[in-house]
Amino acid sequence: MNLAPESPTGVAAGARDLRICFLGDSFVQGTGDPECLGWAGRLCARAARAGSGVTYYNLGVRRDTSADIRRRWHDEVLRRLPPEVDGRIVLSFGTNDTTAQTGRARVGLEESLAHARAILKEAAPWRPLVVGPPYLREPDQSLRLRTLSGGLGHLCRALGVPFIEVFEALGRSPQWCSDVAAHDGMHPRAEGYEVLAQLVADAPAWQAWIG
Amino acid sequence: MNLAPESPTGVAAGARDLRICFLGDSFVQGTGDPECLGWAGRLCARAARAGSGVTYYNLGVRRDTSADIRRRWHDEVLRRLPPEVDGRIVLSFGTNDTTAQTGRARVGLEESLAHARAILKEAAPWRPLVVGPPYLREPDQSLRLRTLSGGLGHLCRALGVPFIEVFEALGRSPQWCSDVAAHDGMHPRAEGYEVLAQLVADAPAWQAWIG
Repeated sequence: MNLAPESPTGVAAGARDLRICFLGDSFVQGTGDPECLGWAGRLCARAARAGSGVTYYNLGVRRDTSADIRRRWHDEVLRRLPPEVDGRIVLSFGTNDTTAQTGRARVGLEESLAHARAILKEAAPWRPLVVGPPYLREPDQSLRLRTLSGGLGHLCRALGVPFIEVFEALGRSPQWCSDVAAHDGMHPRAEGYEVLAQLVADAPAWQAWIG
Repeated sequence: MNLAPESPTGVAAGARDLRICFLGDSFVQGTGDPECLGWAGRLCARAARAGSGVTYYNLGVRRDTSADIRRRWHDEVLRRLPPEVDGRIVLSFGTNDTTAQTGRARVGLEESLAHARAILKEAAPWRPLVVGPPYLREPDQSLRLRTLSGGLGHLCRALGVPFIEVFEALGRSPQWCSDVAAHDGMHPRAEGYEVLAQLVADAPAWQAWIG
């Protein structure tokens, strides 16, 4: 009656078809990138160009903290990664948690790590990978971000979850820093997102994970 | 204490910052596009290049029918388009509704239109725009799609919602048809999505809506 264009899993038999949900904040969403890809889209496009069948689900939401992500991630992922597909999760957050509001961080360090732990434990069937928060220049928040990034690294090692630290490398990247400074002081544009995508793509943890 | 990088709305004062949620299926998601943009990403990148501040939220989910979209759209949109932002919705579906399963369409015509009506009425605060389903060659499903596209056009006129018909134009497009045929018989790759993005970008309804 019709071409039966998608099998029940939506995949041609034998073809690889990885489906990745990127969970996070405005950096995951790619805010500021006029090419509308951000680092997550650039990473998936690289994988697609390299011959991997990749479905790219971007679930980054502006202003989301780890508490916000924890509330929504499971519903949104279940709709996109049913059990019969090869579904994966990438989680990245931190800037909004560490942003000061009425004199203190929106989400404290211990609470951020508790949210991450809860998400990562429940997300185990989707083999989660964590990308640490990107660099921000402002000294107070930078200290909180560096601490959170380190804490996430420890948590991921304890859980056996791959973790990619990007904070220090972005802080040393003239392209990242000048692109952010020329934009809104927080998000980069195309060039900075390309630097971040390249950092992740070059990380052995990513390469092992994307296989 | 910090750079206060995002205002409560996440927008620099005075800058335009449109946030668009694209609701739909695998075509909205951009399945098959190695550039990971699809038609929705290409449209937003055009708007961004033209100087519009646009935040691009892609809520296309593979295999979703109008019934599936109706179940999830409101939760997912509320998280991304809170009342204080300039939030909009684009809705596009139809291929999965009209796919035959056990001898009949997954979702019948009347039911598809009822789901669309319910979504569009509730979505009114976000000024929804509808893009009709893309062309598919297979004769039985093509007939159902053409009928659904026409029905959506009538519904949108009755509700005062902008509607962009693309079915016939894609059927006449050698680039769309050959790109789909060379891929999986259903989804295009980069070239076909570019054709569809161009069709929408050129539509007076889109230009009036994106303003």
